[in-house]
Amino acid sequence: MSGAAARPVGTFELEARDGAARAAVLHLAHGTVHTPAFMPVGTQGTVKAVSSEELAGLGSEIVLANAYHLYLRPGHERVRRLGGLHRFMDWQGPILTDSGGYQVFSLAKINEVTDDGVGFQSHIDGSRHFIGPEFVMEIEHALGADAIMAFDECPPGRADRETAARAMERTHGWLERCDRRFDELSGDDGAQVLLPVLQGGTFPDLRIESLRRAGELRDWPGFGIGGLSVGEPKELMNEILAGMSSELPEGGVRYLMGVGYPADLLAAVRLGYDLFDCVAPTRNGRNGTAFTSAGPVNVKLAAWRDDASPIEEGCGCWACARYSRAYVRHLFVAEELLGLRVLSIHNLYFLTDLVRQTRAAIAEGRFERWVTAWLTRYEGGG
Amino acid sequence: MSGAAARPVGTFELEARDGAARAAVLHLAHGTVHTPAFMPVGTQGTVKAVSSEELAGLGSEIVLANAYHLYLRPGHERVRRLGGLHRFMDWQGPILTDSGGYQVFSLAKINEVTDDGVGFQSHIDGSRHFIGPEFVMEIEHALGADAIMAFDECPPGRADRETAARAMERTHGWLERCDRRFDELSGDDGAQVLLPVLQGGTFPDLRIESLRRAGELRDWPGFGIGGLSVGEPKELMNEILAGMSSELPEGGVRYLMGVGYPADLLAAVRLGYDLFDCVAPTRNGRNGTAFTSAGPVNVKLAAWRDDASPIEEGCGCWACARYSRAYVRHLFVAEELLGLRVLSIHNLYFLTDLVRQTRAAIAEGRFERWVTAWLTRYEGGG
Repeated sequence: MSGAAARPVGTFELEARDGAARAAVLHLAHGTVHTPAFMPVGTQGTVKAVSSEELAGLGSEIVLANAYHLYLRPGHERVRRLGGLHRFMDWQGPILTDSGGYQVFSLAKINEVTDDGVGFQSHIDGSRHFIGPEFVMEIEHALGADAIMAFDECPPGRADRETAARAMERTHGWLERCDRRFDELSGDDGAQVLLPVLQGGTFPDLRIESLRRAGELRDWPGFGIGGLSVGEPKELMNEILAGMSSELPEGGVRYLMGVGYPADLLAAVRLGYDLFDCVAPTRNGRNGTAFTSAGPVNVKLAAWRDDASPIEEGCGCWACARYSRAYVRHLFVAEELLGLRVLSIHNLYFLTDLVRQTRAAIAEGRFERWVTAWLTRYEGGG
Repeated sequence: MSGAAARPVGTFELEARDGAARAAVLHLAHGTVHTPAFMPVGTQGTVKAVSSEELAGLGSEIVLANAYHLYLRPGHERVRRLGGLHRFMDWQGPILTDSGGYQVFSLAKINEVTDDGVGFQSHIDGSRHFIGPEFVMEIEHALGADAIMAFDECPPGRADRETAARAMERTHGWLERCDRRFDELSGDDGAQVLLPVLQGGTFPDLRIESLRRAGELRDWPGFGIGGLSVGEPKELMNEILAGMSSELPEGGVRYLMGVGYPADLLAAVRLGYDLFDCVAPTRNGRNGTAFTSAGPVNVKLAAWRDDASPIEEGCGCWACARYSRAYVRHLFVAEELLGLRVLSIHNLYFLTDLVRQTRAAIAEGRFERWVTAWLTRYEGGG
């Protein structure tokens, strides 16, 4: 997967712009990622119901995993001893690990948050843990992903200004310490890149402040935008994204964390964001919802009972090449495990193909026309 | 999958004998099956957690499906309209359908059993149904499997002589009617073969009587041995199998229904039986038990935590080529869906490879020596 003319890891090459939308290539240790890109979520070192081979087959170029989850189970040192996360989950392409900031604050029972870090109880067994910025770097270094996220405090989506400001402040204190520990751990190997996570809630000036503070520290290969799509209204999210877009440096990847429903992803691409992840394709797939260009469809619909056509006509995915709607419906009605896989693959392909189309439209300077037509069809039901 | 020199469907060519054990080829409409053979169980038109491609990849030559289940859901006429079961489940090789006799008697709430058939309530929704021999032939004809089983009454494993005799009598009355209806439905297409199911419980003379009565009707391409491995002691099953073996015609396939744990399968091969099916590999796989040549292993064992070796060293399956014991354990501990697939494939490969080894041993006249060594290792824990 390594590029022919290898660039330094973290290099982000802009290839085309169309309005604020960008098409680019991100160079990482295990290969290159063409952006806009969608990352399937492999929280526990596996994208639910899908094998690594199937991910490669459907066109995924990078997979997300989660430091918080893998620290708790099976343990980051164990993964390191077993040859690192790539070997562990049999995925040879790039991996990005989220630091687990979001998970600590959303899943665990928090005991204390100080400038040193977070004391919490595991959502699995209630065991007590304390993680701070240095330790998170150690976890992510042991896992060995290509790109790792700094430890951040992620407040709720409707946090008031004071809460958002405090979390942002703390995040930047942690970022400095992450940066230092990351440098110590990486030494000269240069295999991993560290990305900061910007916070600031729904307050435009706090967001700009967060960006400014991160920028003072060093030139980053890119930025994670955290604390959005966590319960705030969509208009507010897009306002924040629009406000930050012109301030973010051109030459770095912009990763909008946790965003990935088709319309949200496209809105963010239009505003100049490049990298996305979301559990939507796999979670919806497991719940029996198929993504189609005419919008989401419940596969248990009676209309699918006798439908010999694929989930979506013209779809190039593994499932659509093999199975009829009638069969997919049968698998869900009969509660067969194959159904979970079939729809997860189809939905991941749908998102992957969507970013591929997006990229082509940007490269050919027809993004606005294309995205309008695409959304009209998707939101209008075909 | 069709053989180069096509033989009439149902042809069973003996290739080698070693004691009572046989190696042979069974010719069916969608291809040939090398026996001894193990059929993965795809009750509802899908082998649980495994795709048809994966079945082909692990070496399966024939898959089992169930008429009772597919009649109830999604409906046999629907499957026919959708192009038949091969197309529906995307499996291009041979399929055998069980009539559902066993399922009616074990899963459904029986309302009445008469010489006409069985009135029962669906195990799914309690709806009322009546199926008799002619209707079962219609179901299996609509599904379109290569080999179909006649409708039988399957009494419990410890049924008394009177119950066993009555079920056997009824089964033969039904067989005549199945045979007649099968001929009407097949006409000249000759794509399907019908196999009778022999009953008679654990009474050697009833078993011989069952065989004699089936044999009076016509020359069959083979026989299903039903009503064994349903709760009776193993010694009794093997006694019955030994008693029938010398009476069964040489030139037909002998299908021991529902048997498939390694030691039971090998004992039956030694007695001259050819074809097997069992949910054990997939059900055990889903429950976290891996089949290995040193016996079954619980994959959650603490010893697997840090074990970088595959489930079984030297195993040629898809899972062992990719994943460590530590990863497989992690998938089960973290309740990840991929684990169910990984172990199902490994266990199916284990059985498929076992019958492949068995066949080679028979062909080379070293079956007894080989099976003794194999069982010593398997039962002794390596």
